Amino acid sequence: MSSGNYFTNEPKEPVVKSETVPGPQSSAGIKALGQVTDSRPVYFIADYEKSVGNYIADVDGNVYLDVYAQIASNPLGYNNPALIETAKSDKMIRAIVDRPALGNFPGADTAEIIQGLLDMAPKGQDKVWSGLSGADANELAFKAAFMWYQGKKRGFTKGFNEEELKSVMSNSAPGSPELAILSFERAFHGRLFASGSATRSKPIHKLDLPAFKWPKAEFPSYKYPLDKYEAENKKEDERCLAIVDDILKSWSIPVAGVLIEPIQSEGGDNHASKEFFQGLRDLTLKHGTLMIVDEVQTGVGATGKMWCHEHFDLSPAPDIVTFSKKFQSAGYFFHDPEIMPAQAYRQFNTWCGDPARMILAGAIGKEIAKNNLVQRTKEVGQYMYSKLEALSSKYPKYIKNLRGKDRGTFIAWSLESGEARDKFLKDLKTKGVNMGGCAESSVRLRPTLVFEEKHVDILIQKIDQLLASY
Amino acid sequence: MSSGNYFTNEPKEPVVKSETVPGPQSSAGIKALGQVTDSRPVYFIADYEKSVGNYIADVDGNVYLDVYAQIASNPLGYNNPALIETAKSDKMIRAIVDRPALGNFPGADTAEIIQGLLDMAPKGQDKVWSGLSGADANELAFKAAFMWYQGKKRGFTKGFNEEELKSVMSNSAPGSPELAILSFERAFHGRLFASGSATRSKPIHKLDLPAFKWPKAEFPSYKYPLDKYEAENKKEDERCLAIVDDILKSWSIPVAGVLIEPIQSEGGDNHASKEFFQGLRDLTLKHGTLMIVDEVQTGVGATGKMWCHEHFDLSPAPDIVTFSKKFQSAGYFFHDPEIMPAQAYRQFNTWCGDPARMILAGAIGKEIAKNNLVQRTKEVGQYMYSKLEALSSKYPKYIKNLRGKDRGTFIAWSLESGEARDKFLKDLKTKGVNMGGCAESSVRLRPTLVFEEKHVDILIQKIDQLLASY
Repeated sequence: MSSGNYFTNEPKEPVVKSETVPGPQSSAGIKALGQVTDSRPVYFIADYEKSVGNYIADVDGNVYLDVYAQIASNPLGYNNPALIETAKSDKMIRAIVDRPALGNFPGADTAEIIQGLLDMAPKGQDKVWSGLSGADANELAFKAAFMWYQGKKRGFTKGFNEEELKSVMSNSAPGSPELAILSFERAFHGRLFASGSATRSKPIHKLDLPAFKWPKAEFPSYKYPLDKYEAENKKEDERCLAIVDDILKSWSIPVAGVLIEPIQSEGGDNHASKEFFQGLRDLTLKHGTLMIVDEVQTGVGATGKMWCHEHFDLSPAPDIVTFSKKFQSAGYFFHDPEIMPAQAYRQFNTWCGDPARMILAGAIGKEIAKNNLVQRTKEVGQYMYSKLEALSSKYPKYIKNLRGKDRGTFIAWSLESGEARDKFLKDLKTKGVNMGGCAESSVRLRPTLVFEEKHVDILIQKIDQLLASY
Repeated sequence: MSSGNYFTNEPKEPVVKSETVPGPQSSAGIKALGQVTDSRPVYFIADYEKSVGNYIADVDGNVYLDVYAQIASNPLGYNNPALIETAKSDKMIRAIVDRPALGNFPGADTAEIIQGLLDMAPKGQDKVWSGLSGADANELAFKAAFMWYQGKKRGFTKGFNEEELKSVMSNSAPGSPELAILSFERAFHGRLFASGSATRSKPIHKLDLPAFKWPKAEFPSYKYPLDKYEAENKKEDERCLAIVDDILKSWSIPVAGVLIEPIQSEGGDNHASKEFFQGLRDLTLKHGTLMIVDEVQTGVGATGKMWCHEHFDLSPAPDIVTFSKKFQSAGYFFHDPEIMPAQAYRQFNTWCGDPARMILAGAIGKEIAKNNLVQRTKEVGQYMYSKLEALSSKYPKYIKNLRGKDRGTFIAWSLESGEARDKFLKDLKTKGVNMGGCAESSVRLRPTLVFEEKHVDILIQKIDQLLASY
């Protein structure tokens, strides 16, 4: 890549042709889609054939600069030529047509495909277990943690006793023990039942669903700007770590794993210090519980490191790191052999992942390495942060608590209310920028890894134009 | 297709070159794979490039007749030309490369892609919600059932009260209510936490994992042959339905849905009568609970109907039908508009399915319809059942309780012990037949939908040869 020009055929700027977003064609499409599934959350009907790089087109001929990128999951821009080549490969076609039950009948290329994931693994991780989505990855990690916890108690290589084998079929202890995962307030870890039990961001994710009675701790709430409130924020770290310590000591159900996002994303881009994460690692060691780092949204380069938790110099490395989204595939990395149960077939299912998506993950990793995209994202993020900082001084009411300094393009800020935020995002679409929200009143930037300085300039210009008109 | 010759380039018969299965190349491959993931459940390393139709090749040059077909998930044989064409299409390449967050940014072709699934939907179902695996499909269905159940109680369009909004964030009632799914002994519905709570087939699927305290009822256990024990089996139906009635009346937690497989597959190919299923439907209506039919393994043609529950003439149609495996995609069908929550974003996640796999599902459906493969599977199944019946008279010790008459190729039988079954399956591999087990001592046939009479003849010949040598 020639720096600053990854996509040579991108539009120069957004184009908005329709008077409203969604435009008339999108509105008709949303109605038609509503005949066959739930189409209420649709923003617009995209035209992926016409989308290029950082620009997403819709069926009304609008072309938006995309800083949301499929809820933070598009890694390398629309119709990326390297990925198209991979998609056309014989290997991919076979993975699509002859989808194997990978656990029983892997193909001759399976080890190589998995190695493609491991080539990008976080420091200290040398094995992977594959899943299909972020929620799936987290729940598979929970299973591993629970089996590990009971294995440690029982003796890893020891078999099950009669009482366990019998009680488990009635979902009762000791075969189905009461065990917990500790998560944090405002965390998001998925929306199935166990992942949903660990999710604490919004009621809408959880209402009317039975949940496990698992504990939650407080995630630090810092005062900004950070350099001004160093002492206060240090105290906040200590307060939150003391709560974790207390729960691990005294919660009514044993805690097998502590689950945390390096940056709480859906929950509002809440950051915590390196010292907090190091303290948390120490607490997991002290109490004999696993540290599970959920890198579903933060992973794969966007924070200026391949994996966000690498900012924290954790030692030893986390026990389990989950991934999905920008890797297009999903699963978890681990390193301790005891995290693989002594008995086969305990972590198992029909497909054990999707090789088509795993092949893509390998290609994504290669393209990132070849073009040095993590470093580029770090640079572009610094450029973007400084521009936003200036804009924040100009419009303090609309760009509050700017977050994500030195975290690549993983940047967010707050507005004064949910209404103000929703209006801002809606108005910005009519200016040709597709951006997403998080938590109650924040917006989050989640561009691809090929978002460049020239895109930053357009983004800043569009925000400036919009806020000037308010 | 010319009947009896769907694949023109298939091998004429199996070839076994290695002295053992797995052979030396597979064994080396399994060891290498064990460096990067759990490879203990691997039978052999397949060579998908050399696999054709009903024949799966491995890296030792062995070629097996495959009556297991990727744990019942390969629909149309290896390297099917129609699916290869689909895999090479521009639409597929875009779905791979530009994977959308379908709920927010569907593409111009999304409605058409979903319609491809609906074209093959069970009678009475007109909407679909997409997921990624069988377990995922079932858990998404549970979510729909729980939201429906609480919606009915609260008033479908009524909002949530303060107490619900607050308590849900602590995983407590009333926001996180205690609600249950009723499943059956020996059932298999997946291995995540909620699906795993409904699974009751084997301890290995469930050990050491926390589970919801959900009830299980008894699935009928019939005496065979069915025509000889008609009166006894009718009583068994009544006994089992009375248990369901009792649980729905008196279980300590309200039951939002009754979940059942049309044939319990992993649990042993246990069949129940049309009258049992009709009685169950009546009970769900009587008690105001949903009927969820898990067609993950039975669906998509193998039983001689597109959907197995269509054998039972249920009226009204089941509320929710889940699918995965042979459809390559996953999700659930439904028809009642009240099963879609009144508020958007309650059934939602980042990807909302995988359009690549959904496109494939549409192509599978078209190929099935074009070649009349459900009817063909019915015919081939009848032929196979009669041949196995004859073999069962010859080897009664090894082919006991033959099951699946008039259920297409969805056929199973039992041996005298788990050891005898395991040895039979292992020995059969050395004869060139890849077959799978289920429950403690049964084997199950799960060939593709393009399994023909000539394949049946080879299968019967190989089993006959093996059993003659015992």
